[in-house]
Amino acid sequence: MNSRMTVFYRVRAKAGEIEERARGIAVEQSVEMPVEAIRDKAILAEVVGEVRRIEDRGEGWFDVEIALAAKTVGDDAGQLLNMLYGNSSIHEDVVLSDFRLPDDLLAKFEGPRQGLEGLRRRAGAKRRALTCTALKPQGSSPETLGEIAFEFARGGVDFVKDDHSLAEQAYSPFAERVRACAKAVRRAASLTGSATQYVPNLSGHFGQMQRQMEIVRAEGISVVMVAPAIAGFSTVQGLSRAHPDIAFLGHPTMTGGGRISPVAMARLFRLIGADAFIFTNYGGRFGISRETCGAMASAARDPWGGKLISAPTPAGGMTPERVPELLNFYGPDTMLLVGGALLKAAPGRLAEETASFARAVADHDYGARA
Amino acid sequence: MNSRMTVFYRVRAKAGEIEERARGIAVEQSVEMPVEAIRDKAILAEVVGEVRRIEDRGEGWFDVEIALAAKTVGDDAGQLLNMLYGNSSIHEDVVLSDFRLPDDLLAKFEGPRQGLEGLRRRAGAKRRALTCTALKPQGSSPETLGEIAFEFARGGVDFVKDDHSLAEQAYSPFAERVRACAKAVRRAASLTGSATQYVPNLSGHFGQMQRQMEIVRAEGISVVMVAPAIAGFSTVQGLSRAHPDIAFLGHPTMTGGGRISPVAMARLFRLIGADAFIFTNYGGRFGISRETCGAMASAARDPWGGKLISAPTPAGGMTPERVPELLNFYGPDTMLLVGGALLKAAPGRLAEETASFARAVADHDYGARA
Repeated sequence: MNSRMTVFYRVRAKAGEIEERARGIAVEQSVEMPVEAIRDKAILAEVVGEVRRIEDRGEGWFDVEIALAAKTVGDDAGQLLNMLYGNSSIHEDVVLSDFRLPDDLLAKFEGPRQGLEGLRRRAGAKRRALTCTALKPQGSSPETLGEIAFEFARGGVDFVKDDHSLAEQAYSPFAERVRACAKAVRRAASLTGSATQYVPNLSGHFGQMQRQMEIVRAEGISVVMVAPAIAGFSTVQGLSRAHPDIAFLGHPTMTGGGRISPVAMARLFRLIGADAFIFTNYGGRFGISRETCGAMASAARDPWGGKLISAPTPAGGMTPERVPELLNFYGPDTMLLVGGALLKAAPGRLAEETASFARAVADHDYGARA
Repeated sequence: MNSRMTVFYRVRAKAGEIEERARGIAVEQSVEMPVEAIRDKAILAEVVGEVRRIEDRGEGWFDVEIALAAKTVGDDAGQLLNMLYGNSSIHEDVVLSDFRLPDDLLAKFEGPRQGLEGLRRRAGAKRRALTCTALKPQGSSPETLGEIAFEFARGGVDFVKDDHSLAEQAYSPFAERVRACAKAVRRAASLTGSATQYVPNLSGHFGQMQRQMEIVRAEGISVVMVAPAIAGFSTVQGLSRAHPDIAFLGHPTMTGGGRISPVAMARLFRLIGADAFIFTNYGGRFGISRETCGAMASAARDPWGGKLISAPTPAGGMTPERVPELLNFYGPDTMLLVGGALLKAAPGRLAEETASFARAVADHDYGARA
């Protein structure tokens, strides 16, 4: 395999120094040693990074395109990240904008095993957008979280996920929490026929997550959440490979503020097997543009070497009132995640508020699209 | 456990908005939902984050100090990172500056098991600084890397580590590389009596690294390298817990450009069990100040809940000529890592150049300290 991946960086530099900076990145992300000291001609020809293009974007910023040897990656997602950005991430003035993988390397990353359609099957949904909400707050007991999960499920939301802050905590150990919430959701299903799925959050390292998966499977759960930027990209890839029948929601905590561009992050999440890609939506708690959100949704959905779609899942301070606007923007191949806003429901009204959110999504008229 | 950890952020905001921003971070990093919707008084009192101090640093930047519930962390390093920074990392204008853990939480993180002294024991060194070099370039076969390792070991450097880019690659699989390099270093030891240790780089997820550790142990190796920001902090913590007799060098790839401050990163590496903390040195390929490097070295060495010292290991474009300057600055409780500069040696001169580097470190006169 002597193919190359193409990596796009945005680099801040003086105009007279950008060529040297670009060459520096090409070396840093490949052989990481003085090129003149390399005597092996095959390494010089095949492995040393090559600057392919430099474009001045104004105000001291340049787009730099570098070709890196695909064979340095193997098939490990952590090593992919290491080669794409790794040491160059330490430079404050180098952003990983985007990347393209050659077909042989792309084929080594299976991508989502369930994807949007696998999530739709679980929800009993045909073509509509999906709905998701989050169990909060941090600090609650398994019983309390179970009670909240019960109300969410009564309201008929498709997925009730753990808040990403729920881990192995003394006041709410994983095993107890998962059993309480799974039981609550089953009880709601038996009462209302709801197809709501409970989605536990995995934490720790691969070995600990494998033990958590045993509890998950014992409860008949088939969707879990994981945070790739905390767990490690290899960890999520390994989980997806070990559990191809499980759907994985990818949470964006610790993905950082644009040092890896949102679009590159969306591609990485999809590559490692995230069946849904949760991201911070425009107009919420995070300062991100509508245009960037659209580009992330495209990266999660566009045709890409036969990979399944990773359901774009805008989140982060969303409200049920925004359902029409968001569905008009994202279309039906989307999952909407509304957490805290539902929890603001008046006492006793949580199931009703949830039902109203679910109905707004199910009944949305895309014909009225702006 | 109702103790609190203190987290320091640097936040860019308008003066009139900083109080709201600070409260927003306190909520984001704790309950992540509208506080007015929380009815549990214990959660309001014990779990919701509290803004303790805001200080104007000028030019639109503020130091913000927030107290977060220690019990939300459990004892997992990934969850610690999730609570310290997590979602707030997505804000481009929020930097994690530093943190303090209460004693009960600090005690849950064992820190280095071998530390600087464990590395010194392996090197047969008493009080002197340690030396380390790196096997490069990427793309070399196990045989070639073994030949280079042999020369490094003949030169008497303390540690010969894999380049951080060496992973599971078709042209150099982990098992073959480790066997070739370990054998080469043993052969050098039998010829010269050198105590040089070969340090393989682990990659993949915890399960894959555990399999790599079996190969490592079979070769009698007792020092390995791992990149926490790629592997995941929980992964490194888990390895250190599973292998307390092994020393771990922590590599900084993917640690990012200052969004987590270098000092906070040094503390995190030490907490999770890095026996050496490799960082990019001032005056090398990376734009980092001497002052920041000094602060990182302090974070790796200062008394901290009885934790062992994580050997500060400046690297990244160092040269043997800088040994006196660096040892005068860092003192003897340090490991100097010189990679590419040694590989620039004229053909046949690698062992001699390495020996000269090792001798300069061993013979340094700290009395001449500036």
